[in-house]
Amino acid sequence: MRRPQRHPRASDGIAALFNPQSVAVIGSLREALFGGYVTAKHLLDFGFKGKIYPVNPQYDTALGMKVYPTVKDIPYPVDLAVMMPAAQAVPEIIGHCAEKQVKVAIIVSDGFAERSEEGARLQRQVEATAGKAGLRLLGPNTIGVANPAVGLITTPYRVLYEKIFTGSISICGQTGLIGPQNLPLEETRYGISKICDFGNKCDIDEIDLLEYLGSDPQTRVIAMHLEQIRDGRAFLKKVREVVRKKPVLVLKPGRTEESKKAMASHTGSLAGEDLVYDSAFRQAGVIRVDSLAELLDFPKVFAYQPLPAGNGVAIITISGGAGVMGVDVAAQHGLKLARLSARTLDALAGIAPVLASNPVDLGPALPAYRGGLASRFGEIVGAVLGDENVDCVGIACPWGLRSSLAEVFGPLVRRSNKTLAVWVPSPSLSRAEEMARSLEGMGFPTYPDCDTAVKALAAAYRYSLVRSKVC
Amino acid sequence: MRRPQRHPRASDGIAALFNPQSVAVIGSLREALFGGYVTAKHLLDFGFKGKIYPVNPQYDTALGMKVYPTVKDIPYPVDLAVMMPAAQAVPEIIGHCAEKQVKVAIIVSDGFAERSEEGARLQRQVEATAGKAGLRLLGPNTIGVANPAVGLITTPYRVLYEKIFTGSISICGQTGLIGPQNLPLEETRYGISKICDFGNKCDIDEIDLLEYLGSDPQTRVIAMHLEQIRDGRAFLKKVREVVRKKPVLVLKPGRTEESKKAMASHTGSLAGEDLVYDSAFRQAGVIRVDSLAELLDFPKVFAYQPLPAGNGVAIITISGGAGVMGVDVAAQHGLKLARLSARTLDALAGIAPVLASNPVDLGPALPAYRGGLASRFGEIVGAVLGDENVDCVGIACPWGLRSSLAEVFGPLVRRSNKTLAVWVPSPSLSRAEEMARSLEGMGFPTYPDCDTAVKALAAAYRYSLVRSKVC
Repeated sequence: MRRPQRHPRASDGIAALFNPQSVAVIGSLREALFGGYVTAKHLLDFGFKGKIYPVNPQYDTALGMKVYPTVKDIPYPVDLAVMMPAAQAVPEIIGHCAEKQVKVAIIVSDGFAERSEEGARLQRQVEATAGKAGLRLLGPNTIGVANPAVGLITTPYRVLYEKIFTGSISICGQTGLIGPQNLPLEETRYGISKICDFGNKCDIDEIDLLEYLGSDPQTRVIAMHLEQIRDGRAFLKKVREVVRKKPVLVLKPGRTEESKKAMASHTGSLAGEDLVYDSAFRQAGVIRVDSLAELLDFPKVFAYQPLPAGNGVAIITISGGAGVMGVDVAAQHGLKLARLSARTLDALAGIAPVLASNPVDLGPALPAYRGGLASRFGEIVGAVLGDENVDCVGIACPWGLRSSLAEVFGPLVRRSNKTLAVWVPSPSLSRAEEMARSLEGMGFPTYPDCDTAVKALAAAYRYSLVRSKVC
Repeated sequence: MRRPQRHPRASDGIAALFNPQSVAVIGSLREALFGGYVTAKHLLDFGFKGKIYPVNPQYDTALGMKVYPTVKDIPYPVDLAVMMPAAQAVPEIIGHCAEKQVKVAIIVSDGFAERSEEGARLQRQVEATAGKAGLRLLGPNTIGVANPAVGLITTPYRVLYEKIFTGSISICGQTGLIGPQNLPLEETRYGISKICDFGNKCDIDEIDLLEYLGSDPQTRVIAMHLEQIRDGRAFLKKVREVVRKKPVLVLKPGRTEESKKAMASHTGSLAGEDLVYDSAFRQAGVIRVDSLAELLDFPKVFAYQPLPAGNGVAIITISGGAGVMGVDVAAQHGLKLARLSARTLDALAGIAPVLASNPVDLGPALPAYRGGLASRFGEIVGAVLGDENVDCVGIACPWGLRSSLAEVFGPLVRRSNKTLAVWVPSPSLSRAEEMARSLEGMGFPTYPDCDTAVKALAAAYRYSLVRSKVC
């Protein structure tokens, strides 16, 4: 399917979606777990710097702000309108927004093409009204966007925390799972540049976002969950442009006939053949991932670490068994176990003879370190990083190091040009979490186990291949 | 390779390994992070009820207990000896144990067949001495066993907590990762029956453990990490017996040539061809898993839930997108999306029209529940469980339910004969953990996401097929 033609004025819309000077919130202003009240309060709580205009004919004031009966009554320009009324009420409100020359509207409401014929008709009506006026639309059936750097967060579901960490990862998707109301973005200090839930994609879609995020200096890596791709040819063309500058990770469900049916009823989208996607993605330089967990986990290695110059991987493990599993994953995902140089092997053997191999198994030597674990560990990692055959390293961080993380990993921050991913085995989930946050604060992406750390490194290597071909 | 013949008295050994009346701890008694002191202290701290005899020629007392210069000097019978000296010292100590008629010895020490020719020679010497005396050996190169029901825990690495939860899951492996020094068994309240690290398997191996755990009334599910299988034919024969009574999950690394080499240097084992294993496992009724995370996660569904009677799966999700991914996983792993009956669809539509499908997506209807989420959720789950086409259900537990879990899930404990697996999406890791613990306390296995919950259900279904064939 080809994408519809757009009104010439429409290109401002995407910029306004993430950086509006003013936001109209159109919905219920009653205090509740869902609705306009929640969106307006989030904007206040997360420190949105622009103007906020609540809209509801039943109130005069809310949250200490003046409330307007309709968007048209706001005597100032409005960049972004967020609305969540029943679907039947949306066409009229979109009409008001068009008249008011609002730049972009987020339609949170569901009950459109994903639900019924009548909903599809409403959706077409809304599209037509907006299209004529050059009003860009996100949704319907979306929780909207987040841009934590400017305190913008549009979800009408209550968010448990009041801070989203700012970083260089941008994630888009067609599920409400990807958003602050569902992800532990505060606890994990996962650094977000932009979040966008496409919903039914009646207008703004993956190509718009690729274009915008591809040029966004705050975005270093783009992760996309796409149930359906509207215009495959245009998408792949845009991907080819963007991957020259930054990686594009895609989770594309619908590998089976069963899930394609499920998608149709959830975002009204029709999916194509999986094998076709697979090969088209590969040719265009997309890094395809297999699960939502990977879509969220892998970007960290791109956000924090340099790309590997080659496919030589070293594994530093606290357990020979985990090392073996890491080696399996490496070989299955395109990495090669690096052959350590004689110099490295000598250096390792100088610390303990049993260390002189790849994987480097700390386990047998651990008891002997006694008090000196931190300095020994630093030497071991240093020796491996210095090896010219090593391009990337999966490192187990023994929990005994928890009080000396800065001492051990601090010096690596500037010294290493290799790609590092760390896993934190631990008899305590909460302490492992703490260690992971400290490590990521220093720029080392962490993963729950050796397998996942190595898979993330392999994804980084795959992208380095893409870069070497297209650049 | 065939297994060696055993001394006729040797069959007591395995029972004594998990239920010794007395344990000799032979090693350093200096307070440290590793050693005999740690093992002896764990036995005290975890409430081991049998006798504890520290052995070390340099001490008279330790931890308030009398210390003996050698095992032979203990004037009482000794069932189990745990030792961790340098490899060179092991043959003499095993000689003492043989003389003393100790039933079973755990050799923690490394530096045997996994290290060098000289180590292999030492290992053969130890095997010969023990074999003649009917002394059974676990290891060398192992952290030993745990049987929390009797407070037995032999690891010489310090464990962070003082309680392992007792349950019906038994896990064996060839890695120190599987043990209380590395797994968060207290925080996760993961119910352990037995843990065993085989190490180099010079004597006690997977067949011994299958035999023992197969008849162990405290064990409901057996999970094994096996780098190498010593006698494939005997192993498969034993598996066929055991799977009539309980499931056997196996993680068999070494899928690639690279990892086979890594295994040889870590437990001295030689792995066979992966495809051969794959088909032999399937024929014998092994449930093969793909990662350590699965080996640890999947047993929960067997430990807590009934087996599914068929392959019809229902998915209750808070996000259409997650539901789609669950459907993909279901279809790829042998489950079929259940066609809900007219009665169920009517009941769901009565709650909200948008709910009347499988996956049942709570998302669009969530805002409407307002205060009544708990009772609505209970009704929805109840309707799905009552459907005759549904054999198993993957359920998203919205975090808004966290204060009413007992109210919602309590009544399901007795009422449902379907297989349930729950996932807990949450904007807070710590609260999600809390909810998971509450749910598992009630008997509902929990998983981090929809995919994993559905994969666990698929594993349960695969085992129900095995059962229906062999029983």
